[in-house]
Amino acid sequence: MKVQLVSNILDANTVIAKEMKRRYQERGILVLNLMSAPGAGKTTILENTIECLKEKVSIAVIEGDICTTLDADRIASHGVPVVQINTEGACHLDANMIARALDNLPLEGVDLLIIENVGNLVCPAEFDLGEDLKVMVISVTEGNDKPNKYPLMFHESRAILVNKQDLLPYTNFDMGALMQDLADLNPHCQVFPLSARTGEGVSAWVEWLEKQVRDKKGQGQ
Amino acid sequence: MKVQLVSNILDANTVIAKEMKRRYQERGILVLNLMSAPGAGKTTILENTIECLKEKVSIAVIEGDICTTLDADRIASHGVPVVQINTEGACHLDANMIARALDNLPLEGVDLLIIENVGNLVCPAEFDLGEDLKVMVISVTEGNDKPNKYPLMFHESRAILVNKQDLLPYTNFDMGALMQDLADLNPHCQVFPLSARTGEGVSAWVEWLEKQVRDKKGQGQ
Repeated sequence: MKVQLVSNILDANTVIAKEMKRRYQERGILVLNLMSAPGAGKTTILENTIECLKEKVSIAVIEGDICTTLDADRIASHGVPVVQINTEGACHLDANMIARALDNLPLEGVDLLIIENVGNLVCPAEFDLGEDLKVMVISVTEGNDKPNKYPLMFHESRAILVNKQDLLPYTNFDMGALMQDLADLNPHCQVFPLSARTGEGVSAWVEWLEKQVRDKKGQGQ
Repeated sequence: MKVQLVSNILDANTVIAKEMKRRYQERGILVLNLMSAPGAGKTTILENTIECLKEKVSIAVIEGDICTTLDADRIASHGVPVVQINTEGACHLDANMIARALDNLPLEGVDLLIIENVGNLVCPAEFDLGEDLKVMVISVTEGNDKPNKYPLMFHESRAILVNKQDLLPYTNFDMGALMQDLADLNPHCQVFPLSARTGEGVSAWVEWLEKQVRDKKGQGQ
């Protein structure tokens, strides 16, 4: 009974997500669904990414949180349009929330729409938002057992940012073991070790992302 | 429609949780629901807690994970009975899962049952497992904005363990701001700053927990 209903919710989500995808496609906008556990550093990475790209790429952001506008306030201070979704208890964003958010976020002239999902390693990976790319962040302070314990998100992500490299010497995180697990689980994903705090490794990620934006724009024309 | 269904699931959960609570009560067992974001250090804290208490208190453990028996294997190596629940995608434990797990975990002679929930700061706080205490872990590497962004779990917890104190000097985590936010959100909770890695601060938490076990046992007799 419960399983049946979840499947219906996911079916309904897929229908809306398809319509969203059509709208993005029409305009040649690259849409990124950014996911991680709480506190892995999504918002700080997003701030760095905006600072590196905003002169070259027109960026808009949707922030997803249970409550507060803390993250949207941080993003707005970088001078890009941002809409905050408060899920009021829901542990993930769904396509309908995005559709409503876009009523307040004009997409004219936007090249890159980044959707920062609710901090959660589980359900966000199950809900298609019509995005081109799922990207996730894992921080080295979380431990390298996470791909095996939360495989879906690691499997679905096109790029995986391994954040807080500056803290690596103070943890028992095993980068080699992580790389091996990712090679088994998702051999085609791009892995970017970086530190949003020191800026180390950020440029490789940003260059890759900029290339995806250009490629998408090329397809749209 | 969706809201109605969620409310029905929660109602059904509450009925089973009440029955679980009656079973625990009958035997004078203290039951603890241990929650946190992924990678905050629940399992390492649990290992430390077991080592400190196992000569004095009879402990049993239920481990909740999406998949794998990694955590149950770690706990079993400390010589206490443990059952692993694999939720197969569900982002939280519910009372029915616990009821089924207890078919494989005899409670005779047990003083303390610790249920380690799925790593998630959202949904685990919504599902009553019949426990006496909700206890949560936040690690300093997650950032001190978490109580405001994920208020329910911080509000529901009787004790909050602030883990990875050994990494505090390398982060911008503000312990004073955290304490102020917790004082506003949950003024009666116990806060234990600790490091599961170095052992710093663990004894204060363990002493408090042992007292809760003794008090519960006293009530049962």
